[in-house]
Amino acid sequence: MRQTFDETTTPAFGREHAPLIRAAMAAQGLDGFVIPHEDEHQNEYLPAANDRLAWATGFTGSAGAAVLLKDKAAIFVDGRYALQVRDQVDTDLFEVRDLVEGGVPAYLQSEARAGWTIGYDPKLHSPEALERLKSAAAKAGAALKPVTPNPLDAAWGAARPAQPQAPVSPHPTQYAGEDSAAKRERVGKSLAEMGADAALITSPASAAWLFNIRGGDVIRSPLPLSQAILNADGSARLFLDPAKVTPDLPAWLGNGVTLETTEALPGALGDLAGQKVLVDPGTSSAWFFEALEKAGAKVVRAADPTALPRACKNAVEVEGARQAHIRDGAALVRFLRWVATDATETLPDETEVVRKLEGFRDATGALKDLSFDTIAGAASNGAIVHYRPTERLTKRLQRGSLLLVDSGAQYLDGTTDVTRTVAIGTPSQEMRERFTLVLRGHLALARIRFPAGTTGSALDVLARAPLWARGLDFDHGTGHGVGSYLGVHEGPQRISKLPNSVALRPGMIVSNEPGYYKEGGYGIRIENLQVVTQPAEIAGGERPMLGFETLTLAPLDRALIVTEMLTAEEHAQIDAYHARVLATVGPQVEPDVRAWLEKASAPL
Amino acid sequence: MRQTFDETTTPAFGREHAPLIRAAMAAQGLDGFVIPHEDEHQNEYLPAANDRLAWATGFTGSAGAAVLLKDKAAIFVDGRYALQVRDQVDTDLFEVRDLVEGGVPAYLQSEARAGWTIGYDPKLHSPEALERLKSAAAKAGAALKPVTPNPLDAAWGAARPAQPQAPVSPHPTQYAGEDSAAKRERVGKSLAEMGADAALITSPASAAWLFNIRGGDVIRSPLPLSQAILNADGSARLFLDPAKVTPDLPAWLGNGVTLETTEALPGALGDLAGQKVLVDPGTSSAWFFEALEKAGAKVVRAADPTALPRACKNAVEVEGARQAHIRDGAALVRFLRWVATDATETLPDETEVVRKLEGFRDATGALKDLSFDTIAGAASNGAIVHYRPTERLTKRLQRGSLLLVDSGAQYLDGTTDVTRTVAIGTPSQEMRERFTLVLRGHLALARIRFPAGTTGSALDVLARAPLWARGLDFDHGTGHGVGSYLGVHEGPQRISKLPNSVALRPGMIVSNEPGYYKEGGYGIRIENLQVVTQPAEIAGGERPMLGFETLTLAPLDRALIVTEMLTAEEHAQIDAYHARVLATVGPQVEPDVRAWLEKASAPL
Repeated sequence: MRQTFDETTTPAFGREHAPLIRAAMAAQGLDGFVIPHEDEHQNEYLPAANDRLAWATGFTGSAGAAVLLKDKAAIFVDGRYALQVRDQVDTDLFEVRDLVEGGVPAYLQSEARAGWTIGYDPKLHSPEALERLKSAAAKAGAALKPVTPNPLDAAWGAARPAQPQAPVSPHPTQYAGEDSAAKRERVGKSLAEMGADAALITSPASAAWLFNIRGGDVIRSPLPLSQAILNADGSARLFLDPAKVTPDLPAWLGNGVTLETTEALPGALGDLAGQKVLVDPGTSSAWFFEALEKAGAKVVRAADPTALPRACKNAVEVEGARQAHIRDGAALVRFLRWVATDATETLPDETEVVRKLEGFRDATGALKDLSFDTIAGAASNGAIVHYRPTERLTKRLQRGSLLLVDSGAQYLDGTTDVTRTVAIGTPSQEMRERFTLVLRGHLALARIRFPAGTTGSALDVLARAPLWARGLDFDHGTGHGVGSYLGVHEGPQRISKLPNSVALRPGMIVSNEPGYYKEGGYGIRIENLQVVTQPAEIAGGERPMLGFETLTLAPLDRALIVTEMLTAEEHAQIDAYHARVLATVGPQVEPDVRAWLEKASAPL
Repeated sequence: MRQTFDETTTPAFGREHAPLIRAAMAAQGLDGFVIPHEDEHQNEYLPAANDRLAWATGFTGSAGAAVLLKDKAAIFVDGRYALQVRDQVDTDLFEVRDLVEGGVPAYLQSEARAGWTIGYDPKLHSPEALERLKSAAAKAGAALKPVTPNPLDAAWGAARPAQPQAPVSPHPTQYAGEDSAAKRERVGKSLAEMGADAALITSPASAAWLFNIRGGDVIRSPLPLSQAILNADGSARLFLDPAKVTPDLPAWLGNGVTLETTEALPGALGDLAGQKVLVDPGTSSAWFFEALEKAGAKVVRAADPTALPRACKNAVEVEGARQAHIRDGAALVRFLRWVATDATETLPDETEVVRKLEGFRDATGALKDLSFDTIAGAASNGAIVHYRPTERLTKRLQRGSLLLVDSGAQYLDGTTDVTRTVAIGTPSQEMRERFTLVLRGHLALARIRFPAGTTGSALDVLARAPLWARGLDFDHGTGHGVGSYLGVHEGPQRISKLPNSVALRPGMIVSNEPGYYKEGGYGIRIENLQVVTQPAEIAGGERPMLGFETLTLAPLDRALIVTEMLTAEEHAQIDAYHARVLATVGPQVEPDVRAWLEKASAPL
């Protein structure tokens, strides 16, 4: 689980590997090949064996794509990775393009030539993504052609790591809060109501939730790579590499679930002939749609039926999240004290900061994994939104600057994700003012009450308005869903400028993480997780309102808060939060840490 | 132009007219007929001759629909009209249903019987609306059938008023700011860029803007009912009843525009054979699509190409709006003084309030029309969102309660729309607190700065957050677009909970009108118009931000503001606004009015 600081790729990867891929393309009669970041599980998190984009280009970000044409190539990343891509990728070989503005379709449309054949692997693209590629290629007079095996895998060959085989074990009901049979019956009923006979579940997180199982095939997220068929009557078939099955698993799955090998899946799709089968066109590969249609099943395109039930945590999961955050809060408080005292003296480098925080979390005795690689960004490294310290890039802390630490943990009872920005030594007035603007947005989103039906898109402006008023903004989403001992990024809800039609519902856990980044200077982000509360009456009001309960418990750096910029309501909100941190986490920590926390969480 | 207080319909309309329509249905072999509010121009504003829904049911609201089946009937209205529909319509005859939740499609799906034929008039439905109806009817096993003439028009017969023939005149460039040739060239180019040869323009407001003409076929809005074909080269054909053509018009339209009769339109569609013709599936009737396709044209479904250019007012139009609002502000200040003094003494009824306000506007010498019938709601009538005073419903002002007045004017240089809520005598603490909550939302939306690309949907929460925090809300949109001496409701932008993908752009005029309504008690609404400003640098900031310039100039009732509930920023914002009202409108009014305004706009 230990975080490492090495680099698994170099910019030479492109020069070394692109010719191999192009040779395999030529052998298949292809003029181009599309390399998405996503793997056959359409997952953000990849095992090394499936990180094709990294092998082809050197780029290790969590989202992106590349197109290799026979005479040129491009890599596509979003704004978060604009700096990183230039550091990791040979830009003589790969033109850097924006993943969102135009993206791969626009490139195919302008760069493919009439009569060309562009290959794609149907297991690596959702039908929705594929439609856009096909339409763009057609405008250029080029054709897209499915290729199995794809030329990249052919070129990778023996050098490719093996598929992971981490053990899959039960996730006990004391943490899950609802047994799998009840979940399957509930989701099965929703299938029946939609007129579907079954659903094909291809997202590993969905299988993990539905069967109350956890695995370890992917770093930082206890996902069991697997697929499943759920029938409307609640019975199911789970497809899993037998090497991953732990002894307790078959009994845990119970009578309603048959455990089968991954190889049995194509045959099982054939059993669905004549049935109406729900598949999610946003998260399942095009390959599944084609296979089902060939098998004679009637495909119903609809959202993964487990996504919304999984996002709405039950009472046991919410209570687990509270406990996880108290435990994590104690580790954070110990860490923040170390930063404010020892580290401000010795000015260690970022890797030491990461190791120290991991050590405090490890010492809780409950840490299963980090929930993602810790981002510790000192000074200008803090301005790189998706920075990860490496031996090459690491900086020492600097007095008079900021340290941004975005980190999280996986515990059996919950997943955490928290960002604190702290001053090392004396911060500048500009740093303090901009921190306070970010904080005001964060507070507005934390205290908002809202009626049922409100989406995260509608609330996003609350976190940005104070920055906007000063001509500032940040170029990432404001909040993402978080799983329960599952992925730290989870849909379908989101708090973002982008439209999202999913209303926030009780039990959903979302992050609240506005920021500000001064390129070459410093970065600020303040992130708490918060859970959507049940609609409740408000004294003197007429309509019940939902709201947020903040889960994350760690003090905000008082040295960075300009109290004169706060309204009375904001001032009181910070004091109340700090009082809660002290009351909840204070009893968990040693006397000297507690003494520090008392000062750190004193009223402003 | 005078506002009247009579009622043009009675609840007996349904009993009198439905049997006539049903007889005509039977003669056409129909088992049902769909009656939309929209007419053949797909317009919110209807001439009496086209208000089919009112004739069939008695309901006179600005949005709605009815379905007449052979054995039952329903009327569909949105939340704004929930009370009014029960007052105007015989609910023994027409079941009242929600227009938005389920609406007509859900009714057809559940109430139509297999084998039934439901008639519709293809001139009265957009293709988008029709798709939903057809799909719903199909689920019930019923078929939709186009009928011309429709059974309602057949039943209405000689009793139906004549089509309006108001004169159509030039709208001078000193108000329009851009001559028609330039507009036509600009929009024509955008057609060419989309690969279209021509556009069919069926919205009267679009024709009015494109040709710089104004008419009077519809009350409260200077619309010329007409259609046009705009070619990509900027030339155009305008179809207009010759009785409406004023002597100056042909020369004003110039060489690039041929003026033709309405009867020539079907033939002109035939001339488009083989061409790519843009038509808006949201605002043009299905009939046009069918006619174009029959004529051999290739229909390109896309938004009306004049909608966005029309919404973004040019510098002359924005300056016109400022002048119109200063003039209108002077009339409003005279009116508000009368309410605060004479009317609080004599307690007149709502119709007198309406007449008085109209008189002040008339006295400006520039009033062309009201921009809609003034809503003056005393006490509990203020809680009826789309109330219009009538002799039957009017109330006298009551001391210790509120008066809500929502009104607007049409001037050559601009259209106004303003709501003020004032206390008559001493308001209750609850009234003051709720007014202040509404005001805080209004202020937040007035002062927001935002980056390019931000939509009105993203900003809506700003106007609601203070109410939500107290368990309150309002059931209407927060803001609508406003035309320039055109419709007081204009798209495509909107500030609303509903998703809307159109970004706010410089020159767009929108209303900012949060409210609170206590059924049976009182109503509160605060409405100003505001124009989106150009992106501008902010001192100390990094990114240019758009914002709003408030156009409406009239004091807010200081007796209703609880200053202790305001932040320092809000307090200063109100004082600055009041100072601006005094500085701008003060010089326009008589000394005694000015003396009153000085007190009414004094710092809090």
